[in-house]
Amino acid sequence: MSSNARNDVSEQQESAAKTGHRLSRRHLLLGGAAAGIGAAGAIGVDVVVKGGIGASAPQTVPLFSGTAAVPFFGVHQAGVDTEPQSRVTFVALNLLPEVDRAALRRMMRILTDDAARLTQGEAALADSEPELAVVPARLTVTFGFGPGLVAVAGGEAPGWLRPLPAFTIDRLQPEWNDGDLLLQIASDDPLTVAHATRMLLKDLRSFATVRWVQSGFRRAAGSEKPGTTMRNLFGQVDGTANPDVGTTDFDGLVWSQADNPGWLVGGTGFVLRRISMNLDKWDGLDRSGRESAIGRTLANGAPLTGTQEQDVPDFTATTPLGFPVIPEFSHLRRARSENTAQRIHRRGYNYDDAPTGAAVSNSGLLFACFQADVDAQFVPIQTRLDTLDLLNEWTTPIGSAVFAIPPGCTKNGYIGDTLF
Amino acid sequence: MSSNARNDVSEQQESAAKTGHRLSRRHLLLGGAAAGIGAAGAIGVDVVVKGGIGASAPQTVPLFSGTAAVPFFGVHQAGVDTEPQSRVTFVALNLLPEVDRAALRRMMRILTDDAARLTQGEAALADSEPELAVVPARLTVTFGFGPGLVAVAGGEAPGWLRPLPAFTIDRLQPEWNDGDLLLQIASDDPLTVAHATRMLLKDLRSFATVRWVQSGFRRAAGSEKPGTTMRNLFGQVDGTANPDVGTTDFDGLVWSQADNPGWLVGGTGFVLRRISMNLDKWDGLDRSGRESAIGRTLANGAPLTGTQEQDVPDFTATTPLGFPVIPEFSHLRRARSENTAQRIHRRGYNYDDAPTGAAVSNSGLLFACFQADVDAQFVPIQTRLDTLDLLNEWTTPIGSAVFAIPPGCTKNGYIGDTLF
Ligand code: HEM
Ligand code: HEM
Repeated sequence: MSSNARNDVSEQQESAAKTGHRLSRRHLLLGGAAAGIGAAGAIGVDVVVKGGIGASAPQTVPLFSGTAAVPFFGVHQAGVDTEPQSRVTFVALNLLPEVDRAALRRMMRILTDDAARLTQGEAALADSEPELAVVPARLTVTFGFGPGLVAVAGGEAPGWLRPLPAFTIDRLQPEWNDGDLLLQIASDDPLTVAHATRMLLKDLRSFATVRWVQSGFRRAAGSEKPGTTMRNLFGQVDGTANPDVGTTDFDGLVWSQADNPGWLVGGTGFVLRRISMNLDKWDGLDRSGRESAIGRTLANGAPLTGTQEQDVPDFTATTPLGFPVIPEFSHLRRARSENTAQRIHRRGYNYDDAPTGAAVSNSGLLFACFQADVDAQFVPIQTRLDTLDLLNEWTTPIGSAVFAIPPGCTKNGYIGDTLF
Repeated sequence: MSSNARNDVSEQQESAAKTGHRLSRRHLLLGGAAAGIGAAGAIGVDVVVKGGIGASAPQTVPLFSGTAAVPFFGVHQAGVDTEPQSRVTFVALNLLPEVDRAALRRMMRILTDDAARLTQGEAALADSEPELAVVPARLTVTFGFGPGLVAVAGGEAPGWLRPLPAFTIDRLQPEWNDGDLLLQIASDDPLTVAHATRMLLKDLRSFATVRWVQSGFRRAAGSEKPGTTMRNLFGQVDGTANPDVGTTDFDGLVWSQADNPGWLVGGTGFVLRRISMNLDKWDGLDRSGRESAIGRTLANGAPLTGTQEQDVPDFTATTPLGFPVIPEFSHLRRARSENTAQRIHRRGYNYDDAPTGAAVSNSGLLFACFQADVDAQFVPIQTRLDTLDLLNEWTTPIGSAVFAIPPGCTKNGYIGDTLF
């Protein structure tokens, strides 16, 4: 009977593997739950999986479960290689002038302790609403350090830890830029994100003030088959060409090695670009124009030279008239380098704020990406896109921030302990 | 085999019934899917429910399913007695001065047509991103008419269709008040809400401008057992004492009868109060102070005189010192009238916007409620709470709007057709 349940989950995993996607942590968690971790079945919508004739007690298999938790402690911080949750809030803070190295250490201890609890569905230490903490729904809290914080800590900053070079396409609004400390708070449940954000901001009250808050979303967990690539508000499949989590390729691209300051080994670099998307203008473009702008189909994200999302684009293929099938100025062509070291791990979210005036949307992408070296990996791509990218016609970067994501920590340590 | 699947669903229904909650539409939809409506299994997270020995093809039962759809056509509009979805966007619009009765009719035909499609997971007629329309996730679109719209239509407005009387606790900010037309767009998927909102606002471009947009959330669908009452950002169980959908009690309280203008029969009245909640101040209060303010426990929402959420409060019970166990000035005591006609159907959502300055939250409740007669049902409650309610110490109404919700329509009609 329980072997039946196990079989079912293996079938799910197998079919996920067939689609060419990595097995997500989520799958693994569900696998664990099905194999008998009872707690996960306590809350959440379960289906009773009946065994063969004569089976006694029914076995429950939670699917999307509010109790699913992502481990907090480890070599790396969670929230980087975690299968993206449905909701995110990014918060950047300014350190108060009186905060020194000792205060920073205190601050990171408190934050680590509360984040570790909250991500496991436990109340924070001084949780004022402990009843809101019981549904982690894969909550992760990821901390990032800006140049200001590293300076106060007296640490060595990686060369790339500074505002990005100015790009001609940028129309940056200062209220969306930079910061000393970053919190990336992500979960499949919006109430969980709200509660965790508040608890951590309470911890920070005597150390920092809020600089900006940006919230984003993807489809609800469970809306689509696990492993489905997200769509952005242009309707595009967005996130196809990403390094596969769990491969050495991913590890090499994302996790800091010896070329970064020692405290950052096992960490990574983070870029957030708030990119406004002009949906009204986009709607003026016909379907084939849209597909040319990207170099992929709208239907399933296949390259214009293929039929399946994961097909390898053929940049040499030409139309009967001799033009490249994937236009040279398409986003796909311009974003992809011959130099395979110039790749990044994208983990973005849609944003959709209240429109004002005659506009019927105020929408865009919280373009978020992780890479070991921002200068060597992100900047060349953004520079190429700045020079030429059909998509620039409909997109405008209005915010920009860079943070160093320190490594994870052990149960006895705290995030950032390698820096202090 | 398929009878097995059916049994499992009946078990779910039975257990939901045991919790004392009505069977939600969602349950019923899932029941339908399990009984063999194949389409619902096409997308979404499925569990393979295996039959007995020798079963051939596996049967799938979607749990939280992006494909679950709420019927659009009917006697009443959906989104009133629908089990609340996880996400909502309320939009109020101002009609353009040139819009006359004929234009209004055109407008409502277009909106009805697109809402009917979108709620069923179909693209809108001129959908610019049809790929975003495929996941309804119980999308409902509910239309409301303000006094301005009814006047242009030349219809008779119910007496209560006007701004609420001024209350002493109100600190209304004009940007959150009133409006000619209301859209309530709710779904378990945030991308679905964003897409539907945009499609409908595109329809409205030549008829109206956006007055305000307010978005809210509850726990993600599937985070908790179906039928769990929501919690607000004070951590309180919020929504316990609500009339039961599907009862004559509910029908009498919510759906307009002959005492309203004829075009509104089968419709209802809607009040939205944007109520800011001072979480910082609330956190200064100890647990027993909080429970006294409401008259219910934080742990499970039971009245202070009981142990279970649904226990009937005993207002005569006293403490050893002779004080009422449920304080006379508690929200529960003040909100409940001896007159059982003075009741409303609450269907609110949390909001959590970006904090500014030293505040660590900008949060509150989109207090939304439906009742056949706003003056006879809502106003007496709000007046009592205005006079005295311990909760006023921590809550401030900052927005207020009243709309008439016309009845539903048939496939050949359109929302509002009884008015035109
Ligand atoms: C609103 C702005 C943007 C939109 C709507 C957008 C959309 C897309 C889409 C639809 C794809 C193809 C599918 C995929 O592989 O994900 C793509 C690919 C990609 N984009 Fe963007 N993108 C935006 C901004 C950026 C920025 C700012 C960067 C980096 C500077 C970037 C880097 C990439 C990369 C590296 C790829 C993969 C290219 C490859 O196939 O190797 N994108 N983007
Ligand atoms: C932010 C503001 C508010 C908060 C936090 C709040 C919270 C609560 C809570 C926790 C309960 C008890 C559980 C329940 O039955 O749902 C309750 C009950 C109730 N509230 Fe509120 N409420 C607020 C504003 C209002 C307003 C503005 C009204 C109407 C004018 C209202 C009307 C009611 C009613 C009718 C009940 C049920 C009372 C009964 O047991 O019969 N509330 N509220």
